[in-house]
Amino acid sequence: MSILTGFTTSDVRFPTSLLLDGSDAMNPDPDYSAAYVTLSTDADDGLEGHGLVFTIGRGNEVQVAALNAFGGHLLGRDAESLLADLGGFSRELLSDSQLRWLGPEKGPIHMAIGAITNALWDLRAKREGQPLWKLLAELSSEEIVDLVDFRYLSDALDPSDALRLLKAQESSRAERVSELLATGYPAYTTGPGWLGYDDEKMARLCAEARDRGYRQVKLKVGANLDDDIRRMGIARDVLGPDFLIAIDANQRWDVVEAIEWVKELARFRPAWIEEPTSPDDILAHRAIRAGVAPVPVATGEHGMNRVLFKQLLQAEAIDVLQLDATRTSGVNENIAILLLAAKFQKRVCPHAGGVGLCEMVQHLSMFDFVAVSGSREGRFIEHVDHLHEHFVTPVQVQQGAYAAPAAPGAGAEMLPDSIRKHTFPTGEVWAARA
Amino acid sequence: MSILTGFTTSDVRFPTSLLLDGSDAMNPDPDYSAAYVTLSTDADDGLEGHGLVFTIGRGNEVQVAALNAFGGHLLGRDAESLLADLGGFSRELLSDSQLRWLGPEKGPIHMAIGAITNALWDLRAKREGQPLWKLLAELSSEEIVDLVDFRYLSDALDPSDALRLLKAQESSRAERVSELLATGYPAYTTGPGWLGYDDEKMARLCAEARDRGYRQVKLKVGANLDDDIRRMGIARDVLGPDFLIAIDANQRWDVVEAIEWVKELARFRPAWIEEPTSPDDILAHRAIRAGVAPVPVATGEHGMNRVLFKQLLQAEAIDVLQLDATRTSGVNENIAILLLAAKFQKRVCPHAGGVGLCEMVQHLSMFDFVAVSGSREGRFIEHVDHLHEHFVTPVQVQQGAYAAPAAPGAGAEMLPDSIRKHTFPTGEVWAARA
Repeated sequence: MSILTGFTTSDVRFPTSLLLDGSDAMNPDPDYSAAYVTLSTDADDGLEGHGLVFTIGRGNEVQVAALNAFGGHLLGRDAESLLADLGGFSRELLSDSQLRWLGPEKGPIHMAIGAITNALWDLRAKREGQPLWKLLAELSSEEIVDLVDFRYLSDALDPSDALRLLKAQESSRAERVSELLATGYPAYTTGPGWLGYDDEKMARLCAEARDRGYRQVKLKVGANLDDDIRRMGIARDVLGPDFLIAIDANQRWDVVEAIEWVKELARFRPAWIEEPTSPDDILAHRAIRAGVAPVPVATGEHGMNRVLFKQLLQAEAIDVLQLDATRTSGVNENIAILLLAAKFQKRVCPHAGGVGLCEMVQHLSMFDFVAVSGSREGRFIEHVDHLHEHFVTPVQVQQGAYAAPAAPGAGAEMLPDSIRKHTFPTGEVWAARA
Repeated sequence: MSILTGFTTSDVRFPTSLLLDGSDAMNPDPDYSAAYVTLSTDADDGLEGHGLVFTIGRGNEVQVAALNAFGGHLLGRDAESLLADLGGFSRELLSDSQLRWLGPEKGPIHMAIGAITNALWDLRAKREGQPLWKLLAELSSEEIVDLVDFRYLSDALDPSDALRLLKAQESSRAERVSELLATGYPAYTTGPGWLGYDDEKMARLCAEARDRGYRQVKLKVGANLDDDIRRMGIARDVLGPDFLIAIDANQRWDVVEAIEWVKELARFRPAWIEEPTSPDDILAHRAIRAGVAPVPVATGEHGMNRVLFKQLLQAEAIDVLQLDATRTSGVNENIAILLLAAKFQKRVCPHAGGVGLCEMVQHLSMFDFVAVSGSREGRFIEHVDHLHEHFVTPVQVQQGAYAAPAAPGAGAEMLPDSIRKHTFPTGEVWAARA
């Protein structure tokens, strides 16, 4: 038996706005940041659990405050019983009625639950000596169902539906583990497409992406239609007629504007239009999807919880579901979302980039392939090639595919030196600027 | 010209959990709290602007951190130009892309924008010597339209729609101001119905409510069906066949359970069923409304933003829209929501109670009656009779109606002594407990 004795948080920020990495139509100057949490126990193994919430700068201290609000749920608790029932513990955190009021089930409190839940999964995976994707993929179907909070889902998915979906994939899991170890999971890259990059840089990075084995890139759109037409034209010329080019408007439009704008870009055959409007607007996504068909509609990186995703699926409002590792309440809620997507037979192409999102979300896609959907068809994990050097187990992307991670854990652990240097506002990177 | 020179925040909490005031099926033990903000200028008038976000205890410090994140937008700014363009300034706050990421447009960041915007309205109303409702009701229709952020609304409401609605009421505004001053705005009371009260207390408080001139009470339901049937029966017996009795499940149910439960209570002819399920679930509210007809469906106290309300209205998912003074981004967004309700011809019966919600939201309903919907028909403002003694201008509710406030301001200003004593954790109320 061991006791959770350590709960520490850090405000970590990278000055990415200087290079316009990550710039888009809504977010001109992000400083990619992490509200970071470390859990430790009094066990002799010295293992820790690490989790984080990705933010883009100001407000990261609010997210840290939200993490700290949960310290009382963790310190002094028996680690073995928490780790053995992460479904139950996730529900305990979600049921803190005073903290829940600040959402409910959305925003910093919800994301804090996600980081803490993910940190516990990280600790459990390290104790079991497994990468998270494999740990999850070796649970029984019944154990997976027990991880999910079905509240508010039963009009679309109940435990028996979930069990049926999982059972259908059970006997073939081992085959897919082998496939995954052999060929990895497809990636697409957003690296070429940031709005702050000029045409020459964008074209060069598109060519590099193709040469490095990617089959899809993504360009940011939505600030200026003429620019978008020119940039899409250049990208299509560089990449040829069959390469997949997704576009991403980062919530810039209302319904009519979205339809008109995307129709102007449809001649370049976009692989999908991402975040055409408010991430909360199920009915607008449905209307836009009808208006821009056959261009597929994608959203989800700001999808606040399973209730939103359930409705996007029920309303047939999207073609591609883009879950995020740190926007919802963690691994458990993301399993609910993967099950919903499988039930409605929609592709999941996770959002990544940011700080550590690639490292974390790959585990969910790989688990999905092995145990939930059973498919990689038309699916990609986003890949952005920055800030990986700050992680203990950075992603390995080669020839346009994520290699299945072998290291124990859930991927969020940062190097102590990176945390120290980038701690806001006292770390040396920020102190030097002040 | 004057400069905004003061921006201070306070973590104010009342130990309401001791008496089970405010207890419901989701929130068994709230400590009603306020994340409070005070704005001041270097003007000789000494006037301040006050705003707050209502929370229920733990996490109030997270909300205070969210308020503090906006200090940089305010300090040193020219007060006159901000107050003269609160539509523009509200949009400035909503457009801080780094802070927006933590929502977007929901949760603590969004509510912080609400409290700050409301504090600016409070300051402006005090400078103009007007209660907020009257200040708003004396703006031109064009000025009112300019206060609204129409982003994401244009598929349901655009500026020309809004202008048409407002113009239709313009010539008769003065009549309704007279009516309001003469007879006030109808109130209903939730005082009798908290789940933690025993039958005798509930019955006694129902009788008192009727005797004090209320025409509607509200009972909490959703924890135990047998209890609900017994309590509804007692309330109906005490109040007679024609008195309005609303019921409130505080998000406890999924779709099928909601329909079954409400059907069991339908024999008591509830005035509405409030928050039957997740406040985010537009499609579930639509299904529940169809399933429980003719019982009206109400929701909104946790409605995160105008995009959610727009969809509830577009989907014909509700009969009664319950906006809240501190859940969204303040007066400006609530004007958008009132305009949406008027466009879709739905009743608005605001959520109140909590800390200062009655004091604030009455201004919105009165403005709505004078300038937007033009109607009080079937409309009530919730009233809960506690914590008013901590406010500088507490509501006056007599014979079941809110008297139109005459004091300048927007209603949120608390007594300095109340703030001091209830500051968490150092104020004397909390220090004594520690």
